[in-house]
Amino acid sequence: MTGSILVVGIGPGDTTHMTPAAQEAITGADLIVGYKTYLKLIAHLVSDTPRESSGMRQEVDRVARVIALAQTGKRVALISGGDAGVYGLAGLVYTMLRADPESPAVDVEVIPGISALNAAAALLGAPLMTDFAAISLSDQLVPREDIMHRLERATEADFVLCLYNPKSRQRTEPFELACAVMLRHRAPDTPVGIVRAAYRERQQVTLTTLAALPDAAIDMVTLVIVGNSETFIHDERMVTPRGYANKYDLGAKHAGPRD
Amino acid sequence: MTGSILVVGIGPGDTTHMTPAAQEAITGADLIVGYKTYLKLIAHLVSDTPRESSGMRQEVDRVARVIALAQTGKRVALISGGDAGVYGLAGLVYTMLRADPESPAVDVEVIPGISALNAAAALLGAPLMTDFAAISLSDQLVPREDIMHRLERATEADFVLCLYNPKSRQRTEPFELACAVMLRHRAPDTPVGIVRAAYRERQQVTLTTLAALPDAAIDMVTLVIVGNSETFIHDERMVTPRGYANKYDLGAKHAGPRD
Repeated sequence: MTGSILVVGIGPGDTTHMTPAAQEAITGADLIVGYKTYLKLIAHLVSDTPRESSGMRQEVDRVARVIALAQTGKRVALISGGDAGVYGLAGLVYTMLRADPESPAVDVEVIPGISALNAAAALLGAPLMTDFAAISLSDQLVPREDIMHRLERATEADFVLCLYNPKSRQRTEPFELACAVMLRHRAPDTPVGIVRAAYRERQQVTLTTLAALPDAAIDMVTLVIVGNSETFIHDERMVTPRGYANKYDLGAKHAGPRD
Repeated sequence: MTGSILVVGIGPGDTTHMTPAAQEAITGADLIVGYKTYLKLIAHLVSDTPRESSGMRQEVDRVARVIALAQTGKRVALISGGDAGVYGLAGLVYTMLRADPESPAVDVEVIPGISALNAAAALLGAPLMTDFAAISLSDQLVPREDIMHRLERATEADFVLCLYNPKSRQRTEPFELACAVMLRHRAPDTPVGIVRAAYRERQQVTLTTLAALPDAAIDMVTLVIVGNSETFIHDERMVTPRGYANKYDLGAKHAGPRD
């Protein structure tokens, strides 16, 4: 029997924001593999299913192990926080299978999840009503200059910015550089939303400005959303209107056309 | 009693990719309002709950109606396809409440959903392992020049591109312009994934190239993902490796550091 790998995005962490497809993939698996924090978040869904955890910096080992297990005919769930398809492990699974074409075939399916940007946006208000860019500030696998170049272009072009992996205890410099890049092209009072541990026990939602962002409390379980030139804060919500929407006569009976 | 508006992202459409939080918001509502296609997709979840549909181009009317109903004390679910927080109606709700500060207060909560980019990425393989930009090609509310400017900057900076609302029957020109812009800065053989009606009955997943994109079958229920300079297609999956990941010795016991 051909084994299979289900690459499962568990969403922000609580079961209410985990899709039924993700829950079924987890409960139906022969074995569940993932970083230990994520295994804790799904522990209540399964009782007897064997689980294997690995550390945060051992992705290649973890995926190699998952592939080897699937090749014995098992149905293995590889779980990721958020969406496994957004900065998750789905790419490494495919890349490693491609690198070893002689090994036994396995089926791979990605189960999408609520990514950090979806969760953060919902908690902040409605910052993503218009074009946005997702940028990871981790320079472990991508050259820092490439990150800053992308960030600068996206800032100039007035994208709303979703910053993944903004800062870790050891890695603070890219975040400082990023703040400087954004401040060169965007007003200091640009609204910024900071969401830590979305939909988990220690959730923190903070509204601030681009000028104050360098001093904000930020870590690896934080997503930062930087507004564009039209983003406003009203009644403690961060909102980016959709283009001309703010120019509508909102009391009028009929809106302009849209498709 | 203060009424409430739950702005609910129902995901791609099938219940297996709709979060329990979204399903609870729908089943617990006094009234459900939405575009008729979305109401059909959730009809099996509710039996007696009153539902009100409106056409695709009547967002302002629909949201005004939802606010008026919530102000009578009702709990109203306003449903959107995908994620209500990504090009959805959440922004219009907040914008209209802000425009009328004298009217009775209502509570607003956004329930995040699987957006089109999450669904399409999962079905295509793993195209979003690195930085990406979401761009809507609809020029009904945003000037066409702004869209093309953003697209050009994002293309130059090697973002993976997620194109929302790529084309409608009446609106074909922005798509043609967009293809020309992308072809100026990216190789003709760049992999492109086209996902129509993700996770619905008539789902279509197509892999093609940037050169062939102008002639592809595209409509309003389609999401287009254009790869970056590193995206590859292998075994019918579209994959963007994460930065240096493709330079790893993937057979080695230990991966490089990551945080």
